[in-house]
Amino acid sequence: MSVTRIAGGVTAAKGFKAAGCEAGIKKAGRADMAMIASDVPCVLAGTFTTNVVKAAPVLWDKEIVQRGTGRAVVVNAGIANACTGKEGMEYCERTAREAASYIGAKTEEVLVASTGVIGQQLPIDRILSGVKKLSGTLSDTMGGGRDAAKAIMTTDTVPKECAVSVTLTDGTEITIGGCAKGSGMIHPNMCTMLCFLTTDAAISQEMLQKALSSVVPDTFNMISVDGDTSTNDTCILMANALAGNNPIEEEGEDYRLFTEGLYQTAETIAKVMAKDGEGATCLFECSVIHAATKEDAKTLARSVVSSILTKAAIAGHDANFGRLLCALGYSGVVFDPERVSLVLESAAGRLLVYDNGVPLPFDEEYATKILSQDEIRCIADMKCGSASATAWGCDLTHEYVSINADYRS
Amino acid sequence: MSVTRIAGGVTAAKGFKAAGCEAGIKKAGRADMAMIASDVPCVLAGTFTTNVVKAAPVLWDKEIVQRGTGRAVVVNAGIANACTGKEGMEYCERTAREAASYIGAKTEEVLVASTGVIGQQLPIDRILSGVKKLSGTLSDTMGGGRDAAKAIMTTDTVPKECAVSVTLTDGTEITIGGCAKGSGMIHPNMCTMLCFLTTDAAISQEMLQKALSSVVPDTFNMISVDGDTSTNDTCILMANALAGNNPIEEEGEDYRLFTEGLYQTAETIAKVMAKDGEGATCLFECSVIHAATKEDAKTLARSVVSSILTKAAIAGHDANFGRLLCALGYSGVVFDPERVSLVLESAAGRLLVYDNGVPLPFDEEYATKILSQDEIRCIADMKCGSASATAWGCDLTHEYVSINADYRS
Repeated sequence: MSVTRIAGGVTAAKGFKAAGCEAGIKKAGRADMAMIASDVPCVLAGTFTTNVVKAAPVLWDKEIVQRGTGRAVVVNAGIANACTGKEGMEYCERTAREAASYIGAKTEEVLVASTGVIGQQLPIDRILSGVKKLSGTLSDTMGGGRDAAKAIMTTDTVPKECAVSVTLTDGTEITIGGCAKGSGMIHPNMCTMLCFLTTDAAISQEMLQKALSSVVPDTFNMISVDGDTSTNDTCILMANALAGNNPIEEEGEDYRLFTEGLYQTAETIAKVMAKDGEGATCLFECSVIHAATKEDAKTLARSVVSSILTKAAIAGHDANFGRLLCALGYSGVVFDPERVSLVLESAAGRLLVYDNGVPLPFDEEYATKILSQDEIRCIADMKCGSASATAWGCDLTHEYVSINADYRS
Repeated sequence: MSVTRIAGGVTAAKGFKAAGCEAGIKKAGRADMAMIASDVPCVLAGTFTTNVVKAAPVLWDKEIVQRGTGRAVVVNAGIANACTGKEGMEYCERTAREAASYIGAKTEEVLVASTGVIGQQLPIDRILSGVKKLSGTLSDTMGGGRDAAKAIMTTDTVPKECAVSVTLTDGTEITIGGCAKGSGMIHPNMCTMLCFLTTDAAISQEMLQKALSSVVPDTFNMISVDGDTSTNDTCILMANALAGNNPIEEEGEDYRLFTEGLYQTAETIAKVMAKDGEGATCLFECSVIHAATKEDAKTLARSVVSSILTKAAIAGHDANFGRLLCALGYSGVVFDPERVSLVLESAAGRLLVYDNGVPLPFDEEYATKILSQDEIRCIADMKCGSASATAWGCDLTHEYVSINADYRS
């Protein structure tokens, strides 16, 4: 294998530093700001929310990514800086300017990202103090990356990091790493999340964006926690070329290797995000096979993991497979229900519950055992083609309601 | 007013009888079968689920409605007879044949409807015994209608009935009545529900279907409890002509009056259905005004009442209006967020929380008071046109999760 999982996250690649700190935006005692910076300018790629209501930092970052060069990203958790009008945009600029002054970059080379409550203004003084703290503690260690991963968490229960090493055709080892947050307001179309990916690969902006754009639809955009597409979704990929590889400037073998490494990083982070969905007790994966088209397969898989009735059944370890069929049926994809087969599986076993349009009798106790694991999979065989896709979600529990009934308090 | 709300439901119109009974499909002590029958053949109209996976009774009824004449409908709660293959279709026919034999109708004049668990076969012997019981107890009283309304309930907490009287231009009073069930697996596109509407109006099949098809998109299809479009959604409208009015055969004033009466009946039932959503403590209404097109207004309103984050905030009486904006934003409708204004209101007051793209400071206590009523309304002013629409949903509570985590047990 030319792609190897390694320890670490956003600081795994050469020349990237990170830090996290407590800036006083969230409750006392909780880190709430992070910074990730490259020693040298980076080529940038990004994907952003498709929500018409875009947070100020999304608008700020889109422009920078379009220009294509950046040095750092400053993140705060607690307040989303969305629906905040002109004031919100000004705060992006002030944050970027402050960070740029410390690391010797230009204001327009600093990305910003926010996550939290929508419709509140940032406490800009605390943000600026936070930027100062962060600039003084940037570290290229695994600990620096972990601190950043922790500081961007909101309702997340675990920090989300991943890194891989990829050997290119010229023998150079490049590294791709990343960290992300995301637990609620998570739904396809640039998932509700912030994700920061770094790599020391030398790669052109065109290829970098192409790689990111090809990976995101099959990874982050295939997870759902609650069907709500956020105003702040952001995935930034920074490449600083410090690995010294022959620059990737076209779609050859190196591009393929790079994209495979990026895919593995993104998929790993996406799955952790789904599994850590607000209130979730398990990862719920749906694989659709033998669909007519790839698009159909994706739509069907997403419909199943987004169905809140199915998610509630999973929470109850209840093999109520009728809800899976119902969710396939209302997805908008046309298929013949009489040909569908459904399998439920997990580490505890595998069960065919519905075959060619007919429900099969099954041992309820065994089914409950299968559905009581922390990673559960459903396979829907549509028998009308050769396309397949996988989507990831989680169960819907009381805890989700508790978290979201009083999110602001 | 030529449309007047009157007492009663499905037996309010002349010549309709109904009954409910305990057939042993659900737990002991709970009525689970109902029958509604007309003394004379009826003209029929119907709308059905758009789910690709259609329950057997939906397939059965669609054919009958297409032929256009019917006498009765037999309903069971507890098992949906969906995803049941050929056996499920046979059970529809046997049920209809049994009922037809008792009331002196043809098998193909008897509609059937089911609601409950998907993917289980009906206990056909109990169903047939139930049909016998029902046929012997059909009653044209308000009590008969109420018994039917109660017997079709699943997780519903209140029976849903409504009736109106309409004075036509020739002075004839016609009556429209109905009953419905629906509490979970409720989402636009023929909502997850069974609704049976009866009228003694003389009206052609074409006009009857036209009236129903014009009313359903703005009433039942504008409610959502959980975003799951069921396999069994059915709305049947039976007209037996016993009021003796000049037959409605074109789109004149009488058609308008009839449709207005039908609209009021359907809207009333739809709102009760949303308010009685599984686990719900309140009706959550969203009115979108000044949208560019009617379709936009509907999409926006539905997106808000379907957002589970918004629904969880409502459960917590939390004026987290950012989630409303977020849901408007990901609806797929293009608009300028900088122009949007948002109002929250209820019997306890009215509050402008967001104006022309800027969040306004507000009294949290007052907001909580407004959101603690049992009917809550949000008005989103898009300021980009003259179209408006209203959608109805409910809050998302722990109880919803409890109900659906163990639905089958």
